[in-house]
Amino acid sequence: MGDIFAPIHKDTTYFLLINGEFVLSDSGRTITGQTPFDGTPTYTIQAASREQIDAAYQAATKAQRSWCRVPLWKRAEYLHKAAAILREHADEIGGVILREVAKNVSASKQEVLRTADLCDYIAEEGVRMEGQLLTADSFTGQPRKKLCLVQRVPLGVVLAQGPFNYPCNLTGSKVAPALIAGNTCVVKGPTQGAVAALYLTAAFHFAGVPAGVVNFVSGRGSEIGDYLVTHPLCNCISFTGGNIGLEVAKKAHMIPLQMELGGKDAAIVCADADLDVAAKCIVSGAFSYSGQRCTAVKLVLVVQEVADALLEKVLAGTRKLTVGRPEDDCEVTALIDRNAADNAEALAMDAKQKGAQWLTEFRRDGNLVYPLVVDRVTEEMRLAWEEPFAPVLPVMRVKSVDEAVQYANRLRYGLQGCVFTQNVNQAIIVASRMTAGTVQVNGAPARGPDHFLFLGHKDSGINAQGAKWSIEAMTKLKSLVINLPEEAYMVAN
Amino acid sequence: MGDIFAPIHKDTTYFLLINGEFVLSDSGRTITGQTPFDGTPTYTIQAASREQIDAAYQAATKAQRSWCRVPLWKRAEYLHKAAAILREHADEIGGVILREVAKNVSASKQEVLRTADLCDYIAEEGVRMEGQLLTADSFTGQPRKKLCLVQRVPLGVVLAQGPFNYPCNLTGSKVAPALIAGNTCVVKGPTQGAVAALYLTAAFHFAGVPAGVVNFVSGRGSEIGDYLVTHPLCNCISFTGGNIGLEVAKKAHMIPLQMELGGKDAAIVCADADLDVAAKCIVSGAFSYSGQRCTAVKLVLVVQEVADALLEKVLAGTRKLTVGRPEDDCEVTALIDRNAADNAEALAMDAKQKGAQWLTEFRRDGNLVYPLVVDRVTEEMRLAWEEPFAPVLPVMRVKSVDEAVQYANRLRYGLQGCVFTQNVNQAIIVASRMTAGTVQVNGAPARGPDHFLFLGHKDSGINAQGAKWSIEAMTKLKSLVINLPEEAYMVAN
Amino acid sequence: MGDIFAPIHKDTTYFLLINGEFVLSDSGRTITGQTPFDGTPTYTIQAASREQIDAAYQAATKAQRSWCRVPLWKRAEYLHKAAAILREHADEIGGVILREVAKNVSASKQEVLRTADLCDYIAEEGVRMEGQLLTADSFTGQPRKKLCLVQRVPLGVVLAQGPFNYPCNLTGSKVAPALIAGNTCVVKGPTQGAVAALYLTAAFHFAGVPAGVVNFVSGRGSEIGDYLVTHPLCNCISFTGGNIGLEVAKKAHMIPLQMELGGKDAAIVCADADLDVAAKCIVSGAFSYSGQRCTAVKLVLVVQEVADALLEKVLAGTRKLTVGRPEDDCEVTALIDRNAADNAEALAMDAKQKGAQWLTEFRRDGNLVYPLVVDRVTEEMRLAWEEPFAPVLPVMRVKSVDEAVQYANRLRYGLQGCVFTQNVNQAIIVASRMTAGTVQVNGAPARGPDHFLFLGHKDSGINAQGAKWSIEAMTKLKSLVINLPEEAYMVAN
Amino acid sequence: MGDIFAPIHKDTTYFLLINGEFVLSDSGRTITGQTPFDGTPTYTIQAASREQIDAAYQAATKAQRSWCRVPLWKRAEYLHKAAAILREHADEIGGVILREVAKNVSASKQEVLRTADLCDYIAEEGVRMEGQLLTADSFTGQPRKKLCLVQRVPLGVVLAQGPFNYPCNLTGSKVAPALIAGNTCVVKGPTQGAVAALYLTAAFHFAGVPAGVVNFVSGRGSEIGDYLVTHPLCNCISFTGGNIGLEVAKKAHMIPLQMELGGKDAAIVCADADLDVAAKCIVSGAFSYSGQRCTAVKLVLVVQEVADALLEKVLAGTRKLTVGRPEDDCEVTALIDRNAADNAEALAMDAKQKGAQWLTEFRRDGNLVYPLVVDRVTEEMRLAWEEPFAPVLPVMRVKSVDEAVQYANRLRYGLQGCVFTQNVNQAIIVASRMTAGTVQVNGAPARGPDHFLFLGHKDSGINAQGAKWSIEAMTKLKSLVINLPEEAYMVAN
Repeated sequence: MGDIFAPIHKDTTYFLLINGEFVLSDSGRTITGQTPFDGTPTYTIQAASREQIDAAYQAATKAQRSWCRVPLWKRAEYLHKAAAILREHADEIGGVILREVAKNVSASKQEVLRTADLCDYIAEEGVRMEGQLLTADSFTGQPRKKLCLVQRVPLGVVLAQGPFNYPCNLTGSKVAPALIAGNTCVVKGPTQGAVAALYLTAAFHFAGVPAGVVNFVSGRGSEIGDYLVTHPLCNCISFTGGNIGLEVAKKAHMIPLQMELGGKDAAIVCADADLDVAAKCIVSGAFSYSGQRCTAVKLVLVVQEVADALLEKVLAGTRKLTVGRPEDDCEVTALIDRNAADNAEALAMDAKQKGAQWLTEFRRDGNLVYPLVVDRVTEEMRLAWEEPFAPVLPVMRVKSVDEAVQYANRLRYGLQGCVFTQNVNQAIIVASRMTAGTVQVNGAPARGPDHFLFLGHKDSGINAQGAKWSIEAMTKLKSLVINLPEEAYMVAN
Repeated sequence: MGDIFAPIHKDTTYFLLINGEFVLSDSGRTITGQTPFDGTPTYTIQAASREQIDAAYQAATKAQRSWCRVPLWKRAEYLHKAAAILREHADEIGGVILREVAKNVSASKQEVLRTADLCDYIAEEGVRMEGQLLTADSFTGQPRKKLCLVQRVPLGVVLAQGPFNYPCNLTGSKVAPALIAGNTCVVKGPTQGAVAALYLTAAFHFAGVPAGVVNFVSGRGSEIGDYLVTHPLCNCISFTGGNIGLEVAKKAHMIPLQMELGGKDAAIVCADADLDVAAKCIVSGAFSYSGQRCTAVKLVLVVQEVADALLEKVLAGTRKLTVGRPEDDCEVTALIDRNAADNAEALAMDAKQKGAQWLTEFRRDGNLVYPLVVDRVTEEMRLAWEEPFAPVLPVMRVKSVDEAVQYANRLRYGLQGCVFTQNVNQAIIVASRMTAGTVQVNGAPARGPDHFLFLGHKDSGINAQGAKWSIEAMTKLKSLVINLPEEAYMVAN
Repeated sequence: MGDIFAPIHKDTTYFLLINGEFVLSDSGRTITGQTPFDGTPTYTIQAASREQIDAAYQAATKAQRSWCRVPLWKRAEYLHKAAAILREHADEIGGVILREVAKNVSASKQEVLRTADLCDYIAEEGVRMEGQLLTADSFTGQPRKKLCLVQRVPLGVVLAQGPFNYPCNLTGSKVAPALIAGNTCVVKGPTQGAVAALYLTAAFHFAGVPAGVVNFVSGRGSEIGDYLVTHPLCNCISFTGGNIGLEVAKKAHMIPLQMELGGKDAAIVCADADLDVAAKCIVSGAFSYSGQRCTAVKLVLVVQEVADALLEKVLAGTRKLTVGRPEDDCEVTALIDRNAADNAEALAMDAKQKGAQWLTEFRRDGNLVYPLVVDRVTEEMRLAWEEPFAPVLPVMRVKSVDEAVQYANRLRYGLQGCVFTQNVNQAIIVASRMTAGTVQVNGAPARGPDHFLFLGHKDSGINAQGAKWSIEAMTKLKSLVINLPEEAYMVAN
Repeated sequence: MGDIFAPIHKDTTYFLLINGEFVLSDSGRTITGQTPFDGTPTYTIQAASREQIDAAYQAATKAQRSWCRVPLWKRAEYLHKAAAILREHADEIGGVILREVAKNVSASKQEVLRTADLCDYIAEEGVRMEGQLLTADSFTGQPRKKLCLVQRVPLGVVLAQGPFNYPCNLTGSKVAPALIAGNTCVVKGPTQGAVAALYLTAAFHFAGVPAGVVNFVSGRGSEIGDYLVTHPLCNCISFTGGNIGLEVAKKAHMIPLQMELGGKDAAIVCADADLDVAAKCIVSGAFSYSGQRCTAVKLVLVVQEVADALLEKVLAGTRKLTVGRPEDDCEVTALIDRNAADNAEALAMDAKQKGAQWLTEFRRDGNLVYPLVVDRVTEEMRLAWEEPFAPVLPVMRVKSVDEAVQYANRLRYGLQGCVFTQNVNQAIIVASRMTAGTVQVNGAPARGPDHFLFLGHKDSGINAQGAKWSIEAMTKLKSLVINLPEEAYMVAN
């Protein structure tokens, strides 16, 4: 395949992709990133100008008129090719992710491979978008003189804006469904993670989609964010990120939004839970990638009679975690930036001052925060309500499962939740009562497998993800009604 | 409403319904029934001649050509009217059921009311039969030049043949979906229960469906059974009954079959089960309507460590059962006929001789068999394999849940099964492993609620019941492909 | 049934409905309406205070927690009861509609009856909201250790805000799906049409839904509009109205929106069209209820070779229209207010000044505008782009069908469109190309039958209506994932 | 890849595949085929013994217990590998098809490639078999205390028996859905075409499915046909062939049948048809592969006013057909055997004697029958009712479209039909009225694209084919009902 990604950069400077061309910012302004771990400069990305954003939208709008007329199987073929490119360059792109966002070696590579699988899956899902056929006489008083043919049609141009923590995968999970559904894309890369997002976008480009079908811009959100989301040529926003998304939703025109924002996934541990399972899920749930995952376990609500037993196991697991450099495949690595680490520290300190107990030592080396389990968290503490996005795990002891559910349901977020219990009735009743998009019974919160439903309730988002749901979110319905002069019933004998 | 059912009989003699006319058998032959309880003569029904069966099929065939062109909402209206008629005459029809098949007062009336609810539900389900719209370009290499419109179309004439134990409901659950789907019916009433089935059929007639849409014949299965099921104008057989159905399936032409035959529903009781729940479900499951239900609990497989505790509760429940006359609303009443009682006795004796333990006294007054719990049943006994269809409950003690599942899966039948356990994992894993159409977790086997799936695996049947599935079983697909000279993609912007 | 609606008013003064109580505005402010026809005072409605709006939202929020736990069949029962109440009071409510918005006698009554049918249909549709069951092993590399149970759950409180032109029906088409899906409602009545909307709301109240499930407020949009749509307790906005909706969409929080705004439905008439059919559809499409319908024909694009022939038939039809008082069941009646009539006049004058031809005389008596067909409209004229919402029909002559499609697709609206042609290929290809939510082949634009899809593309709206789609629009998905310790495949033999 | 197919044969002798082993018949009996064209010996196949058939079924039964527990994505992977093998050996397998059944070079190869595409498509379709989740409270009077989880489960062992005319594809279209759904297969190869069917089966074997998952037997239908279809270990029959299938249906046990038998696809040509399109479709429809296709046009019903014009075009097209050896890629080649040619001749002669007109010369060289258009066919002639399965095209002239439809609907077959008309209303009304599984508007009958519905009505078959429908036909439903002690409503806020 040669070095097909050569055109996307010159040395460590990475380009924009507009209408099929890799270009520099015409403002000449750039942003140079640095590793979360030690601040070593990484890559230089472009700060796109407004004119370039216009150009990207215009190219996408124009390309969409032809792209939506490409046969479904052919669109799928492009996605399969992009998947193959990603798979072949998993090490290379994984390396980029590692450098940009300090995700460890294996997780970085895994992110790329999972994205390839996702593209394959989405391609075949989209090929099967099926229409419906209705007849008028279902409704009282109507003769069967009307046939209604319903299909899903593309929205137009989708703004795909992902976060730093899965810069490849969470961009791909927007671009793939957008494309198979007949839309074109303007991808906005996260400032940290932009190069990984560019690689992802370029994989589609090198798979051969026509110019304008995928476009890539980068730049500071504070400068171009509003311009991008309120652009008159934007027909859909697919956004993953933090609470800023709530503002995006308010600014946006009357267009479909697919938003996944913050989370505060609570793990409720019942008295009859298998504590080994619960502890294992909590440790990996809370600390993988240093807790920088929307679906991290961000609060443990444990009934007091098993709290000590659970925490013993949680601590045992926590102590086994490897902490350090992503190159060494450590499970806990430096947080994305100083703000993130400062915030984690502030949350930990606030809790301690208000009476919580640190079960592990608080330790911080620059942006590297060591796993911290905070016991006896109470409602007065920030950790009881806020999303740490760091390896800091608050534990609240509750008197009853009922108290746990009531507390969890008062959180502003509603992404996921989990309940650990061995009892079938309790499992279903508690899971039903929890106000979150997904409740895991005896498992950690998880986005994926990628054909499962994924969505946030309350302030955690709007509209669903997951293979078919993402395709639905990026299409709308259209119907064609055939009016007949007489009734036409399909008969058989 | 007046006595709208007056035309269906003259005194205690009940007619056939052929092409909208209530008529006597033209052979002059009749059958006079007697109550299961004490042999008092009940009703005289007609032994239809072959010519009358021909006439019924011809009328149904002719009527179907117009009926399938009646708007869906209008067909639904007829079903709603039939439901209203049934509801209004629930006491009258319930009385007929009681007399014909010794079902107790409240269950007999309940059967009629449930049938009315079923008709209403099926009507609204059928109104929503939705078609599909496919495009050619989902498949590799195809341009979008073909649109494929798929609809469900009726089969033609459905032979609806129900059993004695739910003569109204199990006839209605065939006629209602047949009609809403655009089919017409020839109803064959069970010899015991024929009058109840005639009432059901007549309810549709009096609701105003055109002549020929519903037809009713009665007669001995040994005389007209084969003639009915192999009739060249028969387009579908919906049959509920015993093993005879296996022969029907072999004789039938290449037409859709919806068969529900015997069952041997096993209840697996795990060591961690809530024994109160299990015992309650087992007692009602085994003995309601004297065990004459396809979904009766017909075998208990209990792990030995809780066998005694379970049986104590089962016996306590069994002793509370009322036994006697259906007029007195007893839970256990006379079996349908002498053969049934003889068979029950033979199964009980066979088990005892081979070493089983009767936990209650075996007692029989004519056709009335008292509830019998048979413990320590082993594979050598007939009760281990056969369906008692009587208030005789075999219990096998097993070493493990695994042994229980393996045994249950060796039964020739596969209607339903149940597993009693409080553990969520065990519930799902055992239920998944059991080879039955439906497995109940912590509940007795049950047909219904009537929109749930109901079907037998293995020798218990073929094709599913339940509102939408019955409609599917009584329709087939038809497609209309529009070939276009150029590609036609639906667009939106 | 007695005068069940007595509590909603005192003489001609109509109340608010908040938490089950009919109350006056606590500000003491009211609005008195007048008939469109001659300005006679009609009814006095309340200008709700912000506190009352808060109270309505709070009541709805509280009631929703119980309402979403009412069994589906029971919720359906309430809807059926409301339908029965509407049906029984169709004349009374029809009379209110007539007085408030000058809709003629038969159409006013028909609106109520159709709403009753809609409630019945929606009830049965909602009862059938079905969930999905996914297994993990559909996705590459996953063992079947996760079951994903997906259901639709209610959103919470729905703000239901309808327009003046179908004050009963377009309120009902929001309230019914909201309720069956487990939501509660705050209804904002249109200022003209408020009493009809109150009747509709009250029908649910008198059907017995618990206090707080339906609430009704009225008042000037300019005063309380923003407060209503940005209320923190509002979980969904279902809005039908004009371009103001675009602003609503921008102000709204991150909540689902179901918006149906303006339209400019174009009728394309091809050379091979059946001109009788086309003319008939155009006349009724353009002039029924004086063109005050979102789905009115608002532009005719006719290929020039058949333009004269078509217009002759259109004029013949137009001349037969009855114009006058709604009490006399006239087809064309006074427009809703002076602004509407002024606007119609301005559009007509603008066109004439720029060279268009009036094929009928322009005539106006107060708010009553007589049907006007305006030929030779060109792109320079406002009538070529704007929605008249009046009995003023612009006709553009085009050289080809292709030109017609291109023009129609440049309109900012995309509600419906129609194409008149007898050719099967042209019908499908043109309909596919038109950028509207629905394209009618050989029929006038139409909302309904009410189980058909109804939605606006482009500036005409977002999210779909129609029985099942409205229910979908008022629910979101939730999943429950059961994590198992081992693989669990359902088996059968 | 090497010669992976080496194990399936020794020289020109081809083996059986039983439980993963390629073996000779243990009876020592074989059958040697010969080319349709000139009788040259082709391949020697095995006449399997009953013991070997038992062994095949037993192996399949045993293998199925594990196979149904292979993750869906993994099963799909096997299918994709089989597809890759087929694609790589398309020339080789195409050559076999050519020799065995005289299909021309390009069509033979195309058959293999299409089968590969089919396997890929079916794999991805099966991966998406989705379950349903119902709740009890949809039905009147029920609390939400029951959750019903519904899934598709495999049937067990599928007997896959295809015909000579698509020996690779019509075997693959049975094996692929059977396998992805979790079934195992016993493939019965058609005697002519057996080697191609063996190649197909072996492609799955070499893709690595476990021993017993696919088995292959060959032998004379007269000897082993009944034994195969009535075998107690057979859980489903998927059969494509002639009227013999009607007997199969009658003999079979109570198991699901997917049958596609004869056809007599009628092409109705209306007065307004585009005669170029109609003639082109008729010529290719009638004569491709010498008319030996179930979906060949087997009767033209043309309204008399355009009959001459149509036939002129049909004859022009017919004259351009190439006739001769498959190696020369001729469109019309020798019929499969002498019987077939004799039958074609008899049909032609019968028609001529009864007054029909041969528009082309009848010419026959051995089994090679030249294309024959027979005009003025009447009801007295066999050609009016029977399926020629040869390049003999009967044309009936009718007075009206109505007469044409009525005649077509009297045929015993109901596979496909077509209507040629340019009028949208006529297209839909006529297509709706025709009693066939599929009606093509302005196109020739066609199986495929392979995700479209394909099924025969009346004597043409039972149960549907097409990607998802084949999978449905080879599965049944199973449900798991979770009974809860209290109501559990999923909530969201």
